[in-house]
Amino acid sequence: MSGNTFGKIFTVTTFGESHGPAIGGVVDGCPPGLELSTDDLQVDLDRRKPGTSRHTTQRREADAVKILSGVFEGKTTGCPIGLLIDNTDQRSKDYGKIKEQFRPAHADYTYQQKYGIRDYRGGGRASARETAIRVAAGAIAKKYLKAHYGTQIRGYLTQLGPLKPDPNRFNWEEVNRNPFFCPDADLVSQLEAYMDVLRKEGNSIGARITVVVNHVPVGLGEPVFDRLDADIAYALMSINAVKGVEIGDGFACVEQKGTEHRDEITPQGFLSNHAGGILGGISSGQDIIASVALKPTSSLRLPGRSIDIHGQPTEVITTGRHDPCVGIRATPIAEAMLALVLMDHALRHRAQNWDVHSPIPLIPPQATDCKKNR
Amino acid sequence: MSGNTFGKIFTVTTFGESHGPAIGGVVDGCPPGLELSTDDLQVDLDRRKPGTSRHTTQRREADAVKILSGVFEGKTTGCPIGLLIDNTDQRSKDYGKIKEQFRPAHADYTYQQKYGIRDYRGGGRASARETAIRVAAGAIAKKYLKAHYGTQIRGYLTQLGPLKPDPNRFNWEEVNRNPFFCPDADLVSQLEAYMDVLRKEGNSIGARITVVVNHVPVGLGEPVFDRLDADIAYALMSINAVKGVEIGDGFACVEQKGTEHRDEITPQGFLSNHAGGILGGISSGQDIIASVALKPTSSLRLPGRSIDIHGQPTEVITTGRHDPCVGIRATPIAEAMLALVLMDHALRHRAQNWDVHSPIPLIPPQATDCKKNR
Amino acid sequence: MSGNTFGKIFTVTTFGESHGPAIGGVVDGCPPGLELSTDDLQVDLDRRKPGTSRHTTQRREADAVKILSGVFEGKTTGCPIGLLIDNTDQRSKDYGKIKEQFRPAHADYTYQQKYGIRDYRGGGRASARETAIRVAAGAIAKKYLKAHYGTQIRGYLTQLGPLKPDPNRFNWEEVNRNPFFCPDADLVSQLEAYMDVLRKEGNSIGARITVVVNHVPVGLGEPVFDRLDADIAYALMSINAVKGVEIGDGFACVEQKGTEHRDEITPQGFLSNHAGGILGGISSGQDIIASVALKPTSSLRLPGRSIDIHGQPTEVITTGRHDPCVGIRATPIAEAMLALVLMDHALRHRAQNWDVHSPIPLIPPQATDCKKNR
Amino acid sequence: MSGNTFGKIFTVTTFGESHGPAIGGVVDGCPPGLELSTDDLQVDLDRRKPGTSRHTTQRREADAVKILSGVFEGKTTGCPIGLLIDNTDQRSKDYGKIKEQFRPAHADYTYQQKYGIRDYRGGGRASARETAIRVAAGAIAKKYLKAHYGTQIRGYLTQLGPLKPDPNRFNWEEVNRNPFFCPDADLVSQLEAYMDVLRKEGNSIGARITVVVNHVPVGLGEPVFDRLDADIAYALMSINAVKGVEIGDGFACVEQKGTEHRDEITPQGFLSNHAGGILGGISSGQDIIASVALKPTSSLRLPGRSIDIHGQPTEVITTGRHDPCVGIRATPIAEAMLALVLMDHALRHRAQNWDVHSPIPLIPPQATDCKKNR
Repeated sequence: MSGNTFGKIFTVTTFGESHGPAIGGVVDGCPPGLELSTDDLQVDLDRRKPGTSRHTTQRREADAVKILSGVFEGKTTGCPIGLLIDNTDQRSKDYGKIKEQFRPAHADYTYQQKYGIRDYRGGGRASARETAIRVAAGAIAKKYLKAHYGTQIRGYLTQLGPLKPDPNRFNWEEVNRNPFFCPDADLVSQLEAYMDVLRKEGNSIGARITVVVNHVPVGLGEPVFDRLDADIAYALMSINAVKGVEIGDGFACVEQKGTEHRDEITPQGFLSNHAGGILGGISSGQDIIASVALKPTSSLRLPGRSIDIHGQPTEVITTGRHDPCVGIRATPIAEAMLALVLMDHALRHRAQNWDVHSPIPLIPPQATDCKKNR
Repeated sequence: MSGNTFGKIFTVTTFGESHGPAIGGVVDGCPPGLELSTDDLQVDLDRRKPGTSRHTTQRREADAVKILSGVFEGKTTGCPIGLLIDNTDQRSKDYGKIKEQFRPAHADYTYQQKYGIRDYRGGGRASARETAIRVAAGAIAKKYLKAHYGTQIRGYLTQLGPLKPDPNRFNWEEVNRNPFFCPDADLVSQLEAYMDVLRKEGNSIGARITVVVNHVPVGLGEPVFDRLDADIAYALMSINAVKGVEIGDGFACVEQKGTEHRDEITPQGFLSNHAGGILGGISSGQDIIASVALKPTSSLRLPGRSIDIHGQPTEVITTGRHDPCVGIRATPIAEAMLALVLMDHALRHRAQNWDVHSPIPLIPPQATDCKKNR
Repeated sequence: MSGNTFGKIFTVTTFGESHGPAIGGVVDGCPPGLELSTDDLQVDLDRRKPGTSRHTTQRREADAVKILSGVFEGKTTGCPIGLLIDNTDQRSKDYGKIKEQFRPAHADYTYQQKYGIRDYRGGGRASARETAIRVAAGAIAKKYLKAHYGTQIRGYLTQLGPLKPDPNRFNWEEVNRNPFFCPDADLVSQLEAYMDVLRKEGNSIGARITVVVNHVPVGLGEPVFDRLDADIAYALMSINAVKGVEIGDGFACVEQKGTEHRDEITPQGFLSNHAGGILGGISSGQDIIASVALKPTSSLRLPGRSIDIHGQPTEVITTGRHDPCVGIRATPIAEAMLALVLMDHALRHRAQNWDVHSPIPLIPPQATDCKKNR
Repeated sequence: MSGNTFGKIFTVTTFGESHGPAIGGVVDGCPPGLELSTDDLQVDLDRRKPGTSRHTTQRREADAVKILSGVFEGKTTGCPIGLLIDNTDQRSKDYGKIKEQFRPAHADYTYQQKYGIRDYRGGGRASARETAIRVAAGAIAKKYLKAHYGTQIRGYLTQLGPLKPDPNRFNWEEVNRNPFFCPDADLVSQLEAYMDVLRKEGNSIGARITVVVNHVPVGLGEPVFDRLDADIAYALMSINAVKGVEIGDGFACVEQKGTEHRDEITPQGFLSNHAGGILGGISSGQDIIASVALKPTSSLRLPGRSIDIHGQPTEVITTGRHDPCVGIRATPIAEAMLALVLMDHALRHRAQNWDVHSPIPLIPPQATDCKKNR
């Protein structure tokens, strides 16, 4: 199957380049009867869109999505949902020199080598602009999961360079109140100051994002390869700039003993959640917790050594509009990818296990206390 | 597509439970004309198999693989390769109590909830025994990649609990000389002592494994979803007990600036490899570097709180034969999964890009210095 | 994988309803470097489009396709190609009664039962309007196959109701000169007269279409399930109104003896082509010959018994604009589906068999004499 | 996805050659909790197996299937079901000359050209022996469909060369009482006489098989590509020797008018079944009726012209054990393929349409009168 389609039953296919006329996609396999309008999609698109603060790229895109099919009289019909977002603020002249150069740490060199041709305008297909369609598709999944299982998918910034929210000040309400998706109100001014310095330097910085999912149905995941955690890792690592994925305690497990890591069980619930809600590749009903590391953007105003398309040495300075920290806008994208994975697995699960008569878990669901979580 | 098949063109489907009569699998899409015998598969199977030191499970399995089809007169025919390994040392009586209990941190509870039934003998399908077929299939991929591209895939232990190899004593030769796949000869006695204490306690410990791939063809990976790193994350996270995956610098990126992270390019090669050999989801020709975190085994002799299949509280003690550190035998498994990903992507790449006439990279390949790498 | 995607490597995903704002699709996996413009797609779209003669539906659609991505500076980039065609002449008021009725032999009843909801306007997703995107995608495949293998894919009308072209007057040149794709110029006036009577009656009629492919590369097809003929059968049966598919002699084989059916081979070539160019599921290099039967349209002005959405008996008369013989416009659609199958299999073949060094067939290709064929 | 796997959710992967040590397969995605033993599979395997009458190949194979996994304490667990059948009566010496020759109308030439290598013993992978695993897998699907939906899948011989059962003597009971699966008891002696003559001549003959499915759930099929009829065509055309597929009236539609073809609907049911139980690619709840044409076997004792592997002219006489009419044993194979398609689509349907609350069809199911059918 082609590389631009995600999922097995609930699928999303995307197309479009940063500076082409439009980006778009097709969501297939959506259950019929779901109430759906562009408003449902726009909420998360607006959370992701560029140009809403001085800390992200200054490209201005309304990211207004059109639903071209699959919805009739306000409800999904079970037929594929065509999505389209026009590109309105592309400025290809910004990218004149890039035509002949490979930016270090960027996809320029690898696309050229793979395909023998590349759309160099604004990163072409490799631009994070493509993720807008993921966010739109993810919003459909989110709405279905919320309506049918009560599932809630929320992400937040866990680190930006050296700065971390204080767990004791963790507040979900705060996350959507600042441009960083930071759950610690007191950290926001520090983040702003840090980003201002960075922007003046022309440099960029990495970040870490965490997504927490409440009210996950028990039983999602298809061992042995399409484990729920394996598909989450695939989904999150497919986001631009992501270099690491953790489920639950992640790399902290390396130094844990079995007695420390195992989440003991009582009739009232699990006593901890080191596993991040997944056991043997199948959701346990606990909160799913997944984290990603995002590398610093490679488009910098500070000169770097590279080669041109003829193999000659050159110096690269990137002058277009870029995010100095791609991690900032990554929160709604990571949420969307989690939603797509869970939606696909919910449908896969019930395809095979329609006959399992007791979907009520033995163990009640429990809320994760993010103040204690790391 | 069903959850027990890996890959899109070069595919592996596995079946079998820990205590059933046999485990097996089917490798489909293998190029014809590859010289292949069971000897080629047995090398890695022997590296993975249990019972070869006191530090792993004492179950004795020859893990002798049979090739049932797809090879004729010593060469692959392009038809599916049937693989079979008989189970010879299963002792189901070891698992009497487990029938009615859910071991904390194990797949018992989630399998029961998902399917309404589970083969509780030795972990059933959730047992790491299944990975033997992955290793056999991976050996086919390894052989093809080596023959056609010179690609070499090697893993090693990067951490076990608190113990880490000293990078200055890194030696690839050493890795296959000790049961830990440890590249630092001087650390082996400490590892042995640590494991002896742990085993006596009845406890278990986590570990970290790194795989390095040399001579990777440029251009492998299918953006935007089936990025090479996304498929590697999926492949590695699908291994039992893995809770985290990193590509290149991984989570260290969070605190890096763009000027620090970007791998500058000269006509003589890249000046560093923070990216781990993948840019924009496509291989750059540099070494691929991927790391995984493995949680401590959940089968412990130390009692833990849990519930039984009726939802009543119980205390669980696991008395069967188990690996106190699953990370020890994970190295050949992780190598195999890397081989399967690269093989599948090599075939996918040439399907679409047959006509790209200059497969010779502009930038020469470079060996990674594992002494510097972390 | 979702039902609206065709193919494994070269894939086409379509979306859109008859009376929605637009129909569209995504072609993924197209090799890079292919010169491509909307002109290449428009040729076949114009052959398929409605309203060009009095014998097809009088709905007027320019069927002007837009390429939204995947083509840069006139060449394909290897990235997904977004296609869009606006609907401009939908008249939903034509379908008022259909909202509450199930037309006999139409998809109304089954869509309603499957999804619990249906877009009843103009047949919604079940309308043959969707095939415009198949034709556009097929034109991309046709262009690549022609450029790389010299492959030519051409269809024609083999029967319409009781009327059949005379094989002795078979002329490929004639096929595109009349609205019926009829290869026999002398039959055209009879076809026109027959259709005029039928249209006045308010009735419809079945048809038979044959597609012949020249210069097919040897070796395409993936036994045992994804045989080339199996995928052709799937592709052709997926066209609206198709009820039968034949490869080569098809149902005539039932009465043939082995000595009669087998195509003997000489160094100069095969001595006949009963097999239709496929042996053991793999192309032999001979012409591929495939035929389809199309049922008469179910939207008739003559009243028929049915039930309404409440299960009550009703009489149905369809008054909208419809094709009285869907077989007439099916020729470019069937060609497109053949092109999609062959393109996908060409890429699949070379993925696995890159190393087979003698792609030159032992047996030279031969042209099929359609005067003798049936 | 690789060519040796069938299905999307309920999948079957097969491996094995005619003269290798064994054939086998993996059934994945089977719902858990289904009672299953080898007895359930053996019934159809025995109906298909060779050597049970003088009219089929004289190779003697018990075709005793082993279930290696996925079944625990007599019930399916939801994990993959490994199947294995040992080859016991292969005689490779029978095929000495075939090593260097391409039999006309056989897969010899195309396998050699595709892969550059072929297992020439007994047809290798192209042998119909592979279909034993399809029959075993199909038996699992049949059992589930019967248990959950009451679905019954039965095939019969509709023509062998010039001989056709008399519809007035149609009797389902008779089908399993003679080696031809002939529903007309009076025709059996003529079939025997015809086959005896043919066998003495060393020639072969074509046949036609029809499969009828009762009690099909309404709503199965995934437009627009994975229509139920499209997937049936794919499934049936993937059977060795099949050259044509019809749904319902099939090619007879070509001469039908709309008023004749359309199946009118009343609250008591459909008034006819020209459609063969599928409308718009979705099952209507009527009986599904599908027919296939099978070509005469290509392995003949009568000499035919061909070339050898060096391209030189040669005369081919096939002396091994072969079926003079592959159509005879095709009935259980065609039934199995129908079962696999329906099973997969049943699971796909409920994945997406779990929430459609009225699975009870508006129209009651009706039995097809095979006396009237054709």
